[in-house]
Amino acid sequence: MKKYGPIDARQSPRFCGVASFMRLPHITTTEDVDVAFIGIPFDTATTHRVGSRFAPAEIRENSRLLRPYNPAQEIDIFEYCSAVDYGDADVVPGYIERTYERIVETMRPIFDAGVIPIAMGGDHSITLPIFRALATDGPIGMIHLDAHTDTWDEFMGSRSMHGTPFRRAVEEDLLDPERTVQIGIRGAQGTTEGWDYSAEKGMRVIFMDEFAKIGVDEVIAEARRVVGDGATYISFDIDALDPAFAPGTGTPEIGGLTSLEAQTLLRGLRGLNLVGADVVEVAPPFDPSGNTALVAATLMYEILCLLAEVVACEMLQSV
Amino acid sequence: MKKYGPIDARQSPRFCGVASFMRLPHITTTEDVDVAFIGIPFDTATTHRVGSRFAPAEIRENSRLLRPYNPAQEIDIFEYCSAVDYGDADVVPGYIERTYERIVETMRPIFDAGVIPIAMGGDHSITLPIFRALATDGPIGMIHLDAHTDTWDEFMGSRSMHGTPFRRAVEEDLLDPERTVQIGIRGAQGTTEGWDYSAEKGMRVIFMDEFAKIGVDEVIAEARRVVGDGATYISFDIDALDPAFAPGTGTPEIGGLTSLEAQTLLRGLRGLNLVGADVVEVAPPFDPSGNTALVAATLMYEILCLLAEVVACEMLQSV
Amino acid sequence: MKKYGPIDARQSPRFCGVASFMRLPHITTTEDVDVAFIGIPFDTATTHRVGSRFAPAEIRENSRLLRPYNPAQEIDIFEYCSAVDYGDADVVPGYIERTYERIVETMRPIFDAGVIPIAMGGDHSITLPIFRALATDGPIGMIHLDAHTDTWDEFMGSRSMHGTPFRRAVEEDLLDPERTVQIGIRGAQGTTEGWDYSAEKGMRVIFMDEFAKIGVDEVIAEARRVVGDGATYISFDIDALDPAFAPGTGTPEIGGLTSLEAQTLLRGLRGLNLVGADVVEVAPPFDPSGNTALVAATLMYEILCLLAEVVACEMLQSV
Amino acid sequence: MKKYGPIDARQSPRFCGVASFMRLPHITTTEDVDVAFIGIPFDTATTHRVGSRFAPAEIRENSRLLRPYNPAQEIDIFEYCSAVDYGDADVVPGYIERTYERIVETMRPIFDAGVIPIAMGGDHSITLPIFRALATDGPIGMIHLDAHTDTWDEFMGSRSMHGTPFRRAVEEDLLDPERTVQIGIRGAQGTTEGWDYSAEKGMRVIFMDEFAKIGVDEVIAEARRVVGDGATYISFDIDALDPAFAPGTGTPEIGGLTSLEAQTLLRGLRGLNLVGADVVEVAPPFDPSGNTALVAATLMYEILCLLAEVVACEMLQSV
Amino acid sequence: MKKYGPIDARQSPRFCGVASFMRLPHITTTEDVDVAFIGIPFDTATTHRVGSRFAPAEIRENSRLLRPYNPAQEIDIFEYCSAVDYGDADVVPGYIERTYERIVETMRPIFDAGVIPIAMGGDHSITLPIFRALATDGPIGMIHLDAHTDTWDEFMGSRSMHGTPFRRAVEEDLLDPERTVQIGIRGAQGTTEGWDYSAEKGMRVIFMDEFAKIGVDEVIAEARRVVGDGATYISFDIDALDPAFAPGTGTPEIGGLTSLEAQTLLRGLRGLNLVGADVVEVAPPFDPSGNTALVAATLMYEILCLLAEVVACEMLQSV
Amino acid sequence: MKKYGPIDARQSPRFCGVASFMRLPHITTTEDVDVAFIGIPFDTATTHRVGSRFAPAEIRENSRLLRPYNPAQEIDIFEYCSAVDYGDADVVPGYIERTYERIVETMRPIFDAGVIPIAMGGDHSITLPIFRALATDGPIGMIHLDAHTDTWDEFMGSRSMHGTPFRRAVEEDLLDPERTVQIGIRGAQGTTEGWDYSAEKGMRVIFMDEFAKIGVDEVIAEARRVVGDGATYISFDIDALDPAFAPGTGTPEIGGLTSLEAQTLLRGLRGLNLVGADVVEVAPPFDPSGNTALVAATLMYEILCLLAEVVACEMLQSV
Repeated sequence: MKKYGPIDARQSPRFCGVASFMRLPHITTTEDVDVAFIGIPFDTATTHRVGSRFAPAEIRENSRLLRPYNPAQEIDIFEYCSAVDYGDADVVPGYIERTYERIVETMRPIFDAGVIPIAMGGDHSITLPIFRALATDGPIGMIHLDAHTDTWDEFMGSRSMHGTPFRRAVEEDLLDPERTVQIGIRGAQGTTEGWDYSAEKGMRVIFMDEFAKIGVDEVIAEARRVVGDGATYISFDIDALDPAFAPGTGTPEIGGLTSLEAQTLLRGLRGLNLVGADVVEVAPPFDPSGNTALVAATLMYEILCLLAEVVACEMLQSV
Repeated sequence: MKKYGPIDARQSPRFCGVASFMRLPHITTTEDVDVAFIGIPFDTATTHRVGSRFAPAEIRENSRLLRPYNPAQEIDIFEYCSAVDYGDADVVPGYIERTYERIVETMRPIFDAGVIPIAMGGDHSITLPIFRALATDGPIGMIHLDAHTDTWDEFMGSRSMHGTPFRRAVEEDLLDPERTVQIGIRGAQGTTEGWDYSAEKGMRVIFMDEFAKIGVDEVIAEARRVVGDGATYISFDIDALDPAFAPGTGTPEIGGLTSLEAQTLLRGLRGLNLVGADVVEVAPPFDPSGNTALVAATLMYEILCLLAEVVACEMLQSV
Repeated sequence: MKKYGPIDARQSPRFCGVASFMRLPHITTTEDVDVAFIGIPFDTATTHRVGSRFAPAEIRENSRLLRPYNPAQEIDIFEYCSAVDYGDADVVPGYIERTYERIVETMRPIFDAGVIPIAMGGDHSITLPIFRALATDGPIGMIHLDAHTDTWDEFMGSRSMHGTPFRRAVEEDLLDPERTVQIGIRGAQGTTEGWDYSAEKGMRVIFMDEFAKIGVDEVIAEARRVVGDGATYISFDIDALDPAFAPGTGTPEIGGLTSLEAQTLLRGLRGLNLVGADVVEVAPPFDPSGNTALVAATLMYEILCLLAEVVACEMLQSV
Repeated sequence: MKKYGPIDARQSPRFCGVASFMRLPHITTTEDVDVAFIGIPFDTATTHRVGSRFAPAEIRENSRLLRPYNPAQEIDIFEYCSAVDYGDADVVPGYIERTYERIVETMRPIFDAGVIPIAMGGDHSITLPIFRALATDGPIGMIHLDAHTDTWDEFMGSRSMHGTPFRRAVEEDLLDPERTVQIGIRGAQGTTEGWDYSAEKGMRVIFMDEFAKIGVDEVIAEARRVVGDGATYISFDIDALDPAFAPGTGTPEIGGLTSLEAQTLLRGLRGLNLVGADVVEVAPPFDPSGNTALVAATLMYEILCLLAEVVACEMLQSV
Repeated sequence: MKKYGPIDARQSPRFCGVASFMRLPHITTTEDVDVAFIGIPFDTATTHRVGSRFAPAEIRENSRLLRPYNPAQEIDIFEYCSAVDYGDADVVPGYIERTYERIVETMRPIFDAGVIPIAMGGDHSITLPIFRALATDGPIGMIHLDAHTDTWDEFMGSRSMHGTPFRRAVEEDLLDPERTVQIGIRGAQGTTEGWDYSAEKGMRVIFMDEFAKIGVDEVIAEARRVVGDGATYISFDIDALDPAFAPGTGTPEIGGLTSLEAQTLLRGLRGLNLVGADVVEVAPPFDPSGNTALVAATLMYEILCLLAEVVACEMLQSV
Repeated sequence: MKKYGPIDARQSPRFCGVASFMRLPHITTTEDVDVAFIGIPFDTATTHRVGSRFAPAEIRENSRLLRPYNPAQEIDIFEYCSAVDYGDADVVPGYIERTYERIVETMRPIFDAGVIPIAMGGDHSITLPIFRALATDGPIGMIHLDAHTDTWDEFMGSRSMHGTPFRRAVEEDLLDPERTVQIGIRGAQGTTEGWDYSAEKGMRVIFMDEFAKIGVDEVIAEARRVVGDGATYISFDIDALDPAFAPGTGTPEIGGLTSLEAQTLLRGLRGLNLVGADVVEVAPPFDPSGNTALVAATLMYEILCLLAEVVACEMLQSV
């Protein structure tokens, strides 16, 4: 086993103890760490149902159910991968730009240390400052699951709301639109402007209609083709799922993915060059059964498994 | 843009203002109106879970999330289509026949003015007086989504409960059973009497088993074949959907449609000769997440889009 | 009857129709209007549980239960008092100062027309711009019900959060601290700074301990003594009530008032020189039974009754 | 022990078994029975929040928590009193008059056998047919706890809604208004007509204001004075309680009794000549915590204890 | 009609009466009975979300919606099959082994009388003592739907928790692993030990991945192949379904079956040699919409239909 | 400031970070610690509504709202008092005696180090092993708030259920019955046996009737008189409160204390010789609004304030 892994449920039942993610050690360090789970409880950039500031707490609580050995793989992930709950970024509720600065400050040391973060929002605005902190040699690719392209220009005069981060990211040369695939898009809009932007810039947009038609295997293939071997980020807006599976979210749209499709899709991304990930837009006040947070926790876990495999491969290669 | 359309979300956020349907003007007029949304908050004819009297309010509240540009089409619907929230029919709780009279009185001027209503129930009993108000030259066709055929004869001596409207409609020569298709039927019954009636009269009944087997595209083709070019009404009982997607309803039956299937099905009905529609049996007290009302609002919106296309075509033709 | 009153429940049952406050006409006018109900759905200045942006909608929905004849009085209020639902101020979610400007713009014509507004928040930050719009000859008095004094200086560097409005109002000479009484105060704080400010400026602070000791009649007498005959505003933060009575709020504190105490207290304020009022901090996502919104609607109604009496007296005097 | 009593919780834990009231035998008999619990799941006469048809089931479920030995007394009630769960009256949903007939048919054999029924509604309309079944030598007295006097004349043309039973009962000479006390009355109305009727006929109406002023002991004394030694019925509308204590009800009014006041009041009614009782207007769909049904079950139990004492006294006297 | 069947909903609406399963007679007898529904409200062996002790009550309540004629068949089941609600086993909360003894005592007379029980848990630990009571000539086969194989060895030193029953059953020679098929398995574990045990012993484990790939018809064929003609038990852990369909359960795992798949699967099991069945792990406190209990009730009904067919065939053969 | 205190809400908003109690450091140490908050998530000894195993997590989550400066005192408690979140005892679900041993092992080092624990249950059975760990020179006194005396002998043969701990504690000479006061007792029982035991042993039992009559000040005086100057433990069963204030509990009883009365009562206990405390029987699955956990967290905070004063006095004396 590597340095940091979860408490053993055979010694301490899963409902015991302070709720860190997956009952991993809650340590704000990057030393001996491969993956850091981090909360960014910010929802001021939300246009409709606020409340995702409570998502990291609720996701942590539901992550108690997670366990180290995923049947979809053949390894105990914590033998290869050391992971911690890094805590939350100290956001400034009510202030978007000041919060962006704090997020950059919080995330930069993680990236600098070569640790891969899996962030839990917060609304989707948080991905932009994460990209700013990432500071790679050039723009990254992205696999983006969402009901909305989030490439709109502004909302009531603000260019920093939760429907705009990926337009800003392209403008700031943080995101390579031609290595970006957007999956699960659907639902009406006030204008076609955001969709048009995605199309013009060369993002590959897979609307839900197409998803249903071509099926999940084809979608995986297409996603892999688009991002290729370059540095890639996974941004998973929980509203990619149908509200039957994830009702607790800021701007729900019916007609989305099932949980099983989401899992299958993530499992199809093995071996990519992942540099970070987030799961955003979980809004616990609108989630009476807690299922949305459970889905979010499990999807974060699936991403962790992808990363563990990468780390495992590196370890084996370096031997 | 035509006369009546929704408040612009770029000026006034979607949670603002009194909750009319889709934030359309709340005006009880038929002048310059193509489509009228109208609530019929009546649930006295409900045999089990009452509460659909609160559906119009809850659907309106959830319809805030709707927006004018549907990605499944290529037009901004309000450039072609003027729509209002016409308010609610003043029902008489506790009295079925007196309420029927009031519904007829309320609906007739709408039909007489050539306005197409999209009604929100209330329980399914409300469709019978809507048909009575419709008063066309002859019986109409119907695309009926439901878990139940609603062609039963009586319930505890009453011939006006929410399981009987379509038998009455056939008896009163308002509905053409041979131009009627019933989709999503399932669940046990006390006798086979209603199913038998549908079959005998020549209605095309697609049980859920068959639906699963032939798939949604085949169902669409069959529905189009049955109703043909004649005047057609869409009656959508929300319990056609599986309770995972729409738990808040009067007599839920497991094993139903997904939201995506329902949307796909409606989108397959482009170009039909639609004279009216309703979405019924949403019961908000049994809908803790509000998802059922969101589904209902979105399905009403999909029907609006079908109508907008029809209006758009007429406009283009008349040019 | 004066110009604007509610729909008659004997013609149209209370659950019918679009949900304006108390089913009053939804008209954005000040002509022939004595009292205007107005929503200010802004919650960006909330430090903990966001969601009061949904309060105006939920309060309106619950206000269906209200009726014109209050047994605590001897008049049908709408014979003396014309009231409308003025709609909502178009706030800018995520932006406090821009929203303040919009609130001032929205409120000023109401005050200028001599109409008395009863506002529904939103969080407590909204009261400051209402005061700015009020533009009287000098600072006003206030009867303030709340668990918190809301006279703190700043929160994470922001001087505009929902715990600060009354300090700003004193600084801007909008509020006369010596004609201010704060009732129901309780709960722990990080420092004593806000309490100290209230005390230093001469506000009369009635902590819950004292309330319980002296009783509601004494509290009424004290409140009347403090504000005297001058222009007075009532600001009612719903967290003045115990969370058993009003769980759906932003920063609940146990040990508060009962609903009956709140009603009794308001009824004790007859004959004061009231210039406006608000009920704030209802957070529907945390209110599973809807009771908080019902309490808020009823308290707004009690304030309306106070105003109707004032109008009635003026009418009788002018005869 | 007399013939019928509850299952012993020391043998079978309280959550075990089919949910009859208090886990009493579910037998539709009057032989060897002193008290019969009976459900009347009818809510068609409800003007606002329907759903009390589900109250008997929910009250039974919550009655599992009840136990035979009440500390407020000094006897094990089932040593003196044989009680059964008589089941439900088979109502006809949607039909008020037909249901009234069925209720009379169901209740008459109970009264004829000298068994005292404790009914659980349903809405308050059910008390009228119970009175019709009672058929005593003359009108009875009543202790009536409620937010509303239920002495209104009609609602939208109907004289049989849940706000009218006691006017009908006086008109039909079933209820003696001068031996009627109405406790907990409050909340606004459309007119004063019902209150006026109560007053004119000589009912003693204790508004909540007076209740708060004179206190529960005085209220008990007054209630005893009004009903005297004659045959008396207790009708307890759960909305007499504040919605903090009983949110799940058809027409909630804030500012009501606490549970403790309700219990104290009932315990003050020892030794009266009781001929029947009901607890009505519990609406489970609006009761997310189940507390309303628990309160209702416990109040029914307190009434049972009163009856057990009467039976005990008779037994002791007859020795 | 045979001796015991449900109350006729045409005489007594479905919400009426004490909540026995499907409103069957609540009689603890085996005479003239083909199928006995029985509750085993035990949840002490639950490792995470307790509360399934309340499942029998909640399933009974939701079973009101069931009706005798299943459209998937061509018979009225109660013409062939007499069924009762046998009540609950009197478990001992907090004590696993003592409860096992009581379950054996309760179940044995049912099996001895040749009555087929359909049990409702409780957690999955209850199946072991049911097997012990079954006492057939040799080990039985099983069709097991579940997210977990429940073949783990121990939990914190206990060999009797709800993840262990089928390992014990194999060890005690009650269950034939080679005639056992486990369907719907998924989700991470602490080790592979349980999965390994299932594999080593020859159980056919169909993980969710395989299920999605081969489809429900293939799964049915495989299940039939595995169990063959021998005595077979169906054990349905409700967490086999996705939490969108069944959120109220002890250890939810996303990515499971839909309700329709579960129904289709059960309907594919016609004609097997069934000796008993259970539906377990419904946890009502985590089921805000009640949908999980409705799903469970309907699945129990589908199993009843299978049994009715078997009985019907026997009857026809014996003619 | 002493060594350990909460995160400053002026730097990090209260919803940020992993949910330790009051955002205190989560450290399992006794060094430099005055007070240790510790969870004991055990509910296997619960006779009815299980689920208190989730209470520590839910109380921690709600404790975010707490702050260091209590207006009822005149000190910032963390200037005098160092407190930590010690984590949870690793209980063994399903096994009462094994869990008792683990609780003793966990608690003993805390007591041995002179640290005062404030435990959060779990059901009330956990207090017995805490007493066993306390190991003082003789039996301690107790102020016990509860609806039930918890001095019953056994439940279905078990002497270790949550209704028995204080009988066992007297038998084991851990608790001095003559220095025990039980406050808030009410509700029916199967027999009088537990009440009789309390009375016989000399415990002072204040039933709710007496509480209402004599008032909270008198109750405080009586409690102080009973426990005197000796070592005293506070055990607060949340069901002492009325279910309107604390619905989420294992065996709710209507007619209990208000939150304000509970706070007042605790504040009246200043200066006692406290050696430990617990708040038990919070059952989050039955607490839809979260209010019960908020009440519990706040009451724990009030107890902390009492302890801080004691520590403060000692510090001042030692100067």
